[in-house]
Amino acid sequence: MEPHITVLTLGVRDLERSLGFYRDGLGLPTEGIVGTEFEDGAVVFFELAGGLKLALYPRDALAKDARAPIGPPGPASFSIGHNVGSNREVDVLMRDAERAGATIAVPPRDTFWGGYAGYFRDPDGNSLELIMRGSWGF
Amino acid sequence: MEPHITVLTLGVRDLERSLGFYRDGLGLPTEGIVGTEFEDGAVVFFELAGGLKLALYPRDALAKDARAPIGPPGPASFSIGHNVGSNREVDVLMRDAERAGATIAVPPRDTFWGGYAGYFRDPDGNSLELIMRGSWGF
Repeated sequence: MEPHITVLTLGVRDLERSLGFYRDGLGLPTEGIVGTEFEDGAVVFFELAGGLKLALYPRDALAKDARAPIGPPGPASFSIGHNVGSNREVDVLMRDAERAGATIAVPPRDTFWGGYAGYFRDPDGNSLELIMRGSWGF
Repeated sequence: MEPHITVLTLGVRDLERSLGFYRDGLGLPTEGIVGTEFEDGAVVFFELAGGLKLALYPRDALAKDARAPIGPPGPASFSIGHNVGSNREVDVLMRDAERAGATIAVPPRDTFWGGYAGYFRDPDGNSLELIMRGSWGF
């Protein structure tokens, strides 16, 4: 397998709300909701660095598409790490996220691996980590 | 927020087993388990294209780090898309994944958005999609 993840899809309960959170609250660039001409096609794509796309897709449509049971969000099953350039940027973005409706799970603090990081959760309970790189280099 | 996801962390129940699945079964490059000198530090990193890292981290340690409740995997909360160059490659990788212990959730088929894709689930129930790009270009 050529190691190339191209799209990370989050199953969301409310597409409009999540679009607002990620686009207006966090400032991610997007064309908004596309694919409405298809049944279960409505989806939001954000173009990220490195050719990666973040997609928002209604959870029931994702469950149908992936033939996966719909369960509680299960925040500890994964987290998304977003790397920034300074400790101050971690603090600022954490406040932006909070203003946009995020729950601050772990306020930014020095980490055991030599970085500075904190976690917030998006409207669906997904864990996102803001990271100033440390000795592990990420 | 500068749109740059740098690490995607999967909370896993058994680090050795998941390492075996992703490294030996799917062929992702890694130095193996690192960070064991720290309490709750054991982690596996895979270097992917575009500067993205995939991390495997024990679910209880992730729950502690992210202060997130440990729930059932909740496969419909997200999926990871891996893009390949041909329909045949989708088929071949799907068989590789199955041999490595994956559950085939959706056998490869033509999709409504003009691509060819199928889903498998890793040992923790996470949904991964193998995609041959279609009209949406991903």
